Parts: sequence; C-alpha cells; structure tokens
Amino acid sequence: MGVAVPIRRVAVVGAGSWGTTLGVLLAPRVSTTLWARRPEVAEEVLRQRTNRAYLQGEVLPDELSCTASLEDALAGAELVVVAVPSHGFRAVLDEAAAHVALGVPVVSVTKGLEPGTRRRMTEIIGELLPGHPAGALTGPNLAGEVLAGHPSASVLAMADEAHAARVQAVFHTPTLRIYTNPDVVGCEVAGAVKNVIAIAAGMVEGMGFGDNTKAMVVTRGLAELTRLGVALGGDARTFAGLAGMGDLVATCSSARSRNHEVGVALGRGKPVAEVLAGTLTVAEGVRTSAVVAEVAADLGVEMPLVDQVRLVCHEGATAADAVEALLARPATSELR
Amino acid sequence: MGVAVPIRRVAVVGAGSWGTTLGVLLAPRVSTTLWARRPEVAEEVLRQRTNRAYLQGEVLPDELSCTASLEDALAGAELVVVAVPSHGFRAVLDEAAAHVALGVPVVSVTKGLEPGTRRRMTEIIGELLPGHPAGALTGPNLAGEVLAGHPSASVLAMADEAHAARVQAVFHTPTLRIYTNPDVVGCEVAGAVKNVIAIAAGMVEGMGFGDNTKAMVVTRGLAELTRLGVALGGDARTFAGLAGMGDLVATCSSARSRNHEVGVALGRGKPVAEVLAGTLTVAEGVRTSAVVAEVAADLGVEMPLVDQVRLVCHEGATAADAVEALLARPATSELR
Repeated sequence: MGVAVPIRRVAVVGAGSWGTTLGVLLAPRVSTTLWARRPEVAEEVLRQRTNRAYLQGEVLPDELSCTASLEDALAGAELVVVAVPSHGFRAVLDEAAAHVALGVPVVSVTKGLEPGTRRRMTEIIGELLPGHPAGALTGPNLAGEVLAGHPSASVLAMADEAHAARVQAVFHTPTLRIYTNPDVVGCEVAGAVKNVIAIAAGMVEGMGFGDNTKAMVVTRGLAELTRLGVALGGDARTFAGLAGMGDLVATCSSARSRNHEVGVALGRGKPVAEVLAGTLTVAEGVRTSAVVAEVAADLGVEMPLVDQVRLVCHEGATAADAVEALLARPATSELR
Repeated sequence: MGVAVPIRRVAVVGAGSWGTTLGVLLAPRVSTTLWARRPEVAEEVLRQRTNRAYLQGEVLPDELSCTASLEDALAGAELVVVAVPSHGFRAVLDEAAAHVALGVPVVSVTKGLEPGTRRRMTEIIGELLPGHPAGALTGPNLAGEVLAGHPSASVLAMADEAHAARVQAVFHTPTLRIYTNPDVVGCEVAGAVKNVIAIAAGMVEGMGFGDNTKAMVVTRGLAELTRLGVALGGDARTFAGLAGMGDLVATCSSARSRNHEVGVALGRGKPVAEVLAGTLTVAEGVRTSAVVAEVAADLGVEMPLVDQVRLVCHEGATAADAVEALLARPATSELR
C-alpha cells in the first residue's frame, strides 16, 4: 500500500485492565484519551497517575489523558477503541455514537458474544455506527505481561486492508507485534469460545491430570471451535493462529486467567455456585458456554467439550461426569 | 468398514521409555513381545518385571514377553511397532526385515528425521519393507502420564483406512484415545519439527518471559511448521490437530520434555556445549534444527524460529540474540 495518513488521536472507551493498558502503551506515542465510566477513576488516573482497581502497582504515563465524559474523550478522535465488557458494550456505544466523527475506525478489544442477541462486538458496531470501518484487536494478551514489555503478539482483524494498516501502525511496537487478519468473524468467534475451552482445560488440571490430558483438551477444543467458526463463516487458518490457538494456549496456561481458575476449582469438586460466588468478576466463559451451545445446536455443529462445560456450569453436572462422558465417545478420524 | 480380522500378536521393537510403555499397555489385551537390544534389559523385564533405566518405579505386567532376539520377537507378529531413535532406526529395521511376515503392518513411534538422508521413519520402512502398510503413531504422549491412566489422545497416521482401523483397535483404550489420520507426511513432519519449536519456547521461558510470549512462540512456531509441512505434501489440518498443535503444546508445557529443558537452560544463558554435555540423551530438537533448516532452505520456506534455534544450537548465537532478531522482523498479515 502507499503512504497512509497516520492516526494522530485515539479514544480508548473503558478504563478496565486492558483498556487502561492500551492507554498506557499508546499515550507516549499518539495523543490518547481514556474514558472511565466512574468520575472517581478518571480523577485518580489524572491526579494520581494510577488505576489501582484494575492495574495495581502501575504508574501511568503523564501523557495519558482521562475523562468521564464520552463526548470529551471522543472529540477529535481518529480511532476509537472500545474496551467495555460484552454485556455493557451496546449501551456505551449507543451513547458514544453521536460523538464519533464520520468514517473514523472503531475497534473492539472485547472477547465475547452479546447475551440474548448472540451478536459479535463488531456486529454491534456495524448496527450503531454503520459506515465506520469496524475491527477487533484480539490474541494472547495478558495485560501485566504486555505492560512489563514481554514480547507479545496480537491480531488486528479488519476487513479493509488500508484501514487495517493505519490502525496496525498505531498499536505496533517492538514488543507488542500486531499481525493483521481480514477474517473478522473468525477472530471474534475464537476470542469468545476460547474462554469456554479454558474452563474445560482448568477442569482436567483441577482433577489432577497432566500435560497430555490438557493438550488433548486444548487441541480437541480448538477443533470444535474451528468447526463452529467455519460454520459461521470464519477462515480455518484464523483458528490455528494467534486469535485462536495463541489465545487459547495463553489462557489455558495462565494462573491469571479467570476462566482457567474457575475450571480448576470445578475440577477439584467445588460446587459451581460456590466457585462463582467467590469472586467479583464472572468468568466470561461461564456465560458464553450456554450461548455457544445454543448457536452450535442451531447450526448442527458438534461441540462435545463446550456442551460438557455448559452441563457443569449450568445443569449441575460434576467435572468427573464430564470427563466420563467425553471418554465414552468413539474416537474417529481426525480429519473427518 | 466391515468386520476386520483383529490383530492377535504384536512385536514392539525397542525397550526405551515409550516402547516399554506401549508394551505395558498392550500386553494385558493382546499377545505382546518387547525387543530389547541389550540382553540384560530383556532379562530384567522377564525376571524382575522392571525396566529401571527407562521406566523407573514401574512394575511391568506378567503378560509382557521380552527378548533380545529380533527373530524371536517378530515370530508370528501381526503388527510391528518400531520404537528406536531416529539415528538407529534404519539399522534395526534392516536386521528385522527378514523376520517380518508378508503384509504385516509396521508402525513407527519415533519422532525425527534420519540424519544425512532427511528421511521420515515411514520412508525408511517403505525402503526396507516395501509392500508393508506403514504408519506412524504420534501425538502428545508423555509416557508417565499415559501409564498413570491420565486421559490421553494419539494419532495413528496410515494411508490405508482398513489397515488403520485394525491397528487403531489394538491401541485404543478408554484412556488412550486413538484418532486415525491418513496424512502420514504431515503427522511425521509435525512430530519432528515440534521438538525444535519446544526449544524456542523453552528459551523465552528461561529468559523470564511469560505466557503471552510463549503462546506467541508456540503459535508462530506452528505456523512455520505448517508452512513446511504443506510444502512437503502434508494436510494443513493435521498441524492444527493432535500430531501438530497437541504434541507441541504438551512438549512446550512439560517439565519432563528434554527439548523444552534444553531451551530453558539456553534461555538462562548457559552455553550450548555445557547444556548438551550435562546429559546422557541428546535432545532430538538440537539435531533436527539443522536438518529442518536445510530442508526449508531447499524448498524456499521461511522458518525464522527454527533458524534462530539452529543459530543458538550450532552457530554460537545467544538466546538474547535470537529474540532480538525475531522482534526486528516486520509483522505482516497472519494469513499471507
């Protein structure tokens, strides 16, 4: 492609852990404003240069601006990054829409499907901001490690190559490598479903099984995620890449993943109500397991692992029941 | 398929850790004889029901027969399983060939390429035992976990479906699930190259980087493994399955993998000579990195991770040099 006009101003909508992390990364290089829903968080970011609730122990750069006004955050933005949870995504974007300038690209960094509608985040962007190039930034991104400067890679999923190159240039650094991928559907489905597989991987770990078993769960989990993603219109290669396999492997390895942690507790035999009661944040995969199982049933896609996670999370089955049911299935050809 | 004649007698050629493990699994269900190169190992297996050098602490089942005579081991065998290291594979098979009955399937469980010729193990079987159905059993199989009865899955790669179904029936148990795959080339290439990627994953771990970085190495490693495998005639789906991703994930997670362990030591800055001198067994990936780099260069396939592992293992580069070189590469589109 030829020389593109660089993006000079970014609004990051959502001051949770990942939104704030992106603000920290972007601010020294491009004018960046973070939107925090709660004014006291915006105050804290501006005055104390911290966001203790979401980025414990991190000092934020002076260049990062922050406001609780969506209008102020979005004024003059040439790129909008949306980092709010899937259940609040539509409401925030609806309020934001009036303040986003024509033609400005809007990128979701949220991994999930909208409860009820089962929509992907870029579908919601398309509904509320029609005509804006929509994209998703996804992949193996544990915020703490990215901030520590550990080499990481992400995928920017956007259908339009020229817009993708402009957005890629904003995010790419020597240690956070951004790969583009035109397969938006595949990238978003992968990001949502991998949380369910991470619960399954945590379960077998909690039951005391080793690396073979976990590798089997991760691999067969990716196979069913791929079947669903392809049925929904995704590209099979996406699922073998950073948004699929990469994110799945990182989530299933990390002690810091909430979904993985929930699976481990379930595998140890803790009742599901107790596991979910024990924390403030609900693991996305718990909710997603039910939504994905519905979508899969509608499309006639077999997803035995997702189905077992759903039974354990929502129907009172135990992790031991789940493993027994899975092992009773006949083994067939891998490439069928 | 219709009703196939079951396999009634198996010879396992090679009494290392994986060969002995397969003997332990098979013997209670089908007449099984293990061949040990050294008579004292055969004696130990028969008299003491142990193989301490390779399966520390394991009591072998009474049904497992063992001999140091290849002729005796192969007499009446209806399936031959070859479990000797890649550098000794040809010599042992050459000696065995005269004793294998016509049409008996021969299955390799060795992961590697023959030094010098760069041949896959089933290619050597095809040369020395032409006309015999040849296959490879591969996937995420840490012997200790399989023996402990942890749920595991393997891939049986055989071109002929009817033969594959017969062999699958011999190995399949409720906890060791055997999936068939007609893509022999892909399965064998994956098994060999994953050891090189495991060294790279170990290196970033040894340097103190976290789960994002490792997930990136594993994912981009699988991408280059896939490029090579497809160029050699493999099916892209194989690499996303148990023989590719599954084995890679297990090897890169396991503290018990020799290749992973070598990578960690290199990442901590230990000189390569010292790392390799410290152990009896050479990690297969060290040797394979040089062979694979040659094959890739011949085919014009880009393999930046394999190349960096080769430079560290054979050309005096440090792990830090390798990471720096990799991060200096431009990030492009994932699906190019």
